[in-house]
Amino acid sequence: MSDYDLHHHGDQEVGAGLVDLAVNVRLPKPPEWLRRELAEALDDLAAYPNPVAAAEAVATRHRRDSGEVLITAGAAEAFTLLARAFRGRNAVVVHPQFTEPEAALLAAGHEVRRVVLPDFVLDPALVPGDADLVFVGNPTNPTSVLHPAEALRALVRPGRVLVVDEAFLDAVPGEPESLAEETLSGVVVIRSLTKTWGIAGLRAGYVLAEAEIIERLRAVQPPWSVSSLAARAVVACCRPAALDEADKLAVAGERDRERLVAGLRERGVEVAGEPRGPFVLIRIPGADRVRERLRATGYAVRRGDTFPGLSRDYLRLAVRDEATTARFLRALELTMNGSGQGE
Amino acid sequence: MSDYDLHHHGDQEVGAGLVDLAVNVRLPKPPEWLRRELAEALDDLAAYPNPVAAAEAVATRHRRDSGEVLITAGAAEAFTLLARAFRGRNAVVVHPQFTEPEAALLAAGHEVRRVVLPDFVLDPALVPGDADLVFVGNPTNPTSVLHPAEALRALVRPGRVLVVDEAFLDAVPGEPESLAEETLSGVVVIRSLTKTWGIAGLRAGYVLAEAEIIERLRAVQPPWSVSSLAARAVVACCRPAALDEADKLAVAGERDRERLVAGLRERGVEVAGEPRGPFVLIRIPGADRVRERLRATGYAVRRGDTFPGLSRDYLRLAVRDEATTARFLRALELTMNGSGQGE
Repeated sequence: MSDYDLHHHGDQEVGAGLVDLAVNVRLPKPPEWLRRELAEALDDLAAYPNPVAAAEAVATRHRRDSGEVLITAGAAEAFTLLARAFRGRNAVVVHPQFTEPEAALLAAGHEVRRVVLPDFVLDPALVPGDADLVFVGNPTNPTSVLHPAEALRALVRPGRVLVVDEAFLDAVPGEPESLAEETLSGVVVIRSLTKTWGIAGLRAGYVLAEAEIIERLRAVQPPWSVSSLAARAVVACCRPAALDEADKLAVAGERDRERLVAGLRERGVEVAGEPRGPFVLIRIPGADRVRERLRATGYAVRRGDTFPGLSRDYLRLAVRDEATTARFLRALELTMNGSGQGE
Repeated sequence: MSDYDLHHHGDQEVGAGLVDLAVNVRLPKPPEWLRRELAEALDDLAAYPNPVAAAEAVATRHRRDSGEVLITAGAAEAFTLLARAFRGRNAVVVHPQFTEPEAALLAAGHEVRRVVLPDFVLDPALVPGDADLVFVGNPTNPTSVLHPAEALRALVRPGRVLVVDEAFLDAVPGEPESLAEETLSGVVVIRSLTKTWGIAGLRAGYVLAEAEIIERLRAVQPPWSVSSLAARAVVACCRPAALDEADKLAVAGERDRERLVAGLRERGVEVAGEPRGPFVLIRIPGADRVRERLRATGYAVRRGDTFPGLSRDYLRLAVRDEATTARFLRALELTMNGSGQGE
C-alpha cells in the first residue's frame, strides 16, 4: 500500500455550512439545458444503456475515429481499466498529481514507481527509460501546471503506454497543449465532463487512444458500465453550442483565477507554479493549521499533504466567482494573522 | 475465450417496431414516484456520489449490517468485482444461467469449469468439491427455475465463496428461497433494481456478504463507481411503500406468467422446468427459425443458444401483460403452423 492517503479527495473536506473551495467542480449544478435533457432521458431508463451515440459524438468533437473512443463511468473508471488491461508493465506515475491513477495501479497489483517533479514542471528526462506505463496529468491536479505538448510527446516510446489525464483541460480556454486530437502510438488521453458541467454525480468521461488500446480497455470494462444518462450527457456536452459555452466558462474561470492569484500574492502567499487550471496550489508554512482555522471560519479548502511530492505546507484552492474569492481572501488574511475563530 | 457468445443479451434482439419479449425488464419506464425523485436529484449532480445512505437503506431492508452491503453499478459490476477480488480460485459456474458471471471470470483471467444441470434443477452433488468460487442464479436466468435455499446452503463449504445471483428474486412474491437475510460464511448475494423498476439504464444493484468479503470487493471497485442517481434509486426502492409495490407487481407478474405458461401448454409448447421468475424458457424444435419468423411478425424473443447448456431449440420469453401475451400467443401459433410472414 501507499504512504499517502491516495483515496482522500476534496469531497471529504466539504461540510454543511462551509463554502466549498475543496472540490474542483465549477458549476453548483448542471446548466438548465443539460438538466432538461437528462430529465427527458429519465423516461428511457428501462432500456439498457448503449454508448454508441456518445462515442460518435466524442469522435466528432475530437476529429477521431469512433473506434478510438471509449466512454467510461468518469475518469476514475478509466484509470481502473488501464491498470487492469496493462498488468505486468513497469508503471510510473509522475507526481504531484491526482492520486487515483496510482491507487488504481496498486489495487490491480502493480508496483508503482514515482517520479516527483521538484518544480512541478514536466522534465521528460526524469521518467525512466524502462517505464512502459506512464501517467501524467495535464493540466495537473493539484499543481495547476500545464505541461507543453512537446514535453509530453518527448515521452512517447515504442512499446510504452503514456496516459495523459486531461480531465481539466476543457477548463483552459482553447484547450492548448492537448493530445486529444493526435493519434500517437501508445498515447491515451482521458477526459471528464464532471468538472465543467457540474455532473460529478453522474460519472461521465471518456478515453481517446488508438483502436488496439481501446479494445484492450473494453475487454476489461464491465458491461453497461456507463449509465444511459451519462451517455446522454456526453452527447449533449459535445454539441457545438455546449463547446462554445465551455470555452466561455473557461475564459471567465481564467479571470476568476487571475483575481484569486493576484489577491494571494498581494497577501504574500506563495502560489506554486504558473496555474492554468481551475484551481491553485499555494504554499504556506503551517498550512494544515491554516486549513483548520479556515474551516472554523466557514471555508473548506483541500489539504495538500495527501499528494505524493507535497507536504503539510500546501493547500489547493478551487477557483470561485469574484465575490466568493474576495470573501475568501479576507478570511484567509484574518486566518494568517492568527485571528481565526478556530483557536 | 468461450464457445458461446456470452456477451449476447436480450437488448440486442429488440428493434424498432418490435414488441419486446426479449429483455427481462418489467416496466416500460420507472414509476412516477421514482421518476420524480430522480428528477429532483438532478439538481444535486455537482457533488460526487456517496453511497452511504444507499448502503444503510439496503441493510435495513435485508436486516443486515451496513458493512455487509456494497452498492454496485448494477449486478454486472458485481460480477466483475468478484472475478477480480477472487483471482486464483477454482471457479465453477452452474449453467444454464446468465452469461455475464462467466464472461467476467474469463475477462479477469480465470479458467472456468461449467456444471450443466441436465434438468435445470440444482443438484449440489454436481459441484466439484475443490471449487472455491461458485456462481448460481436464483431464480435462474434463463430457466426461471427457483432453487431451494436448502440446496444452496448445501453448497456452503469452508473457504468457498458461493455467489447467488438473486437479480430476479424481487419478482417472486414473498422472495422465497432467498439467502439475502442470512449471514452465511462465504455466501455472496447479488441483487438488482433494474428489472422490477424499469431502470436498466441507471445501473443500480448491490451485494450482500460478510464484511470481509465486502471489503475485498470494495478494494477493487473504482471510486465513485455508482452514480448519485443510482444511489438515490436504491434508497427510494428500499422504502416500505416501494417494497409493497414490488410485491404487488410480483403477484401480478405471477398471474401474467401463469397465463403465458397455460397458453403455451395449450398450444403444445414445452415449457422448461417450473418457471418462477418473470420469464419463461420454452423448447421448440427449430426454435431459431421460429424466432426469425416471430421477428417478421413483430415480436422479439430471446434466443436460447447463447446460453451454455441450451441449444437452438430454446427461446426465452419475458412475461408481459395479459393483452400482449394473448397477441403473442396467437402470433406464435401462426408461426408454428408455418404461416408466419417471414417466409
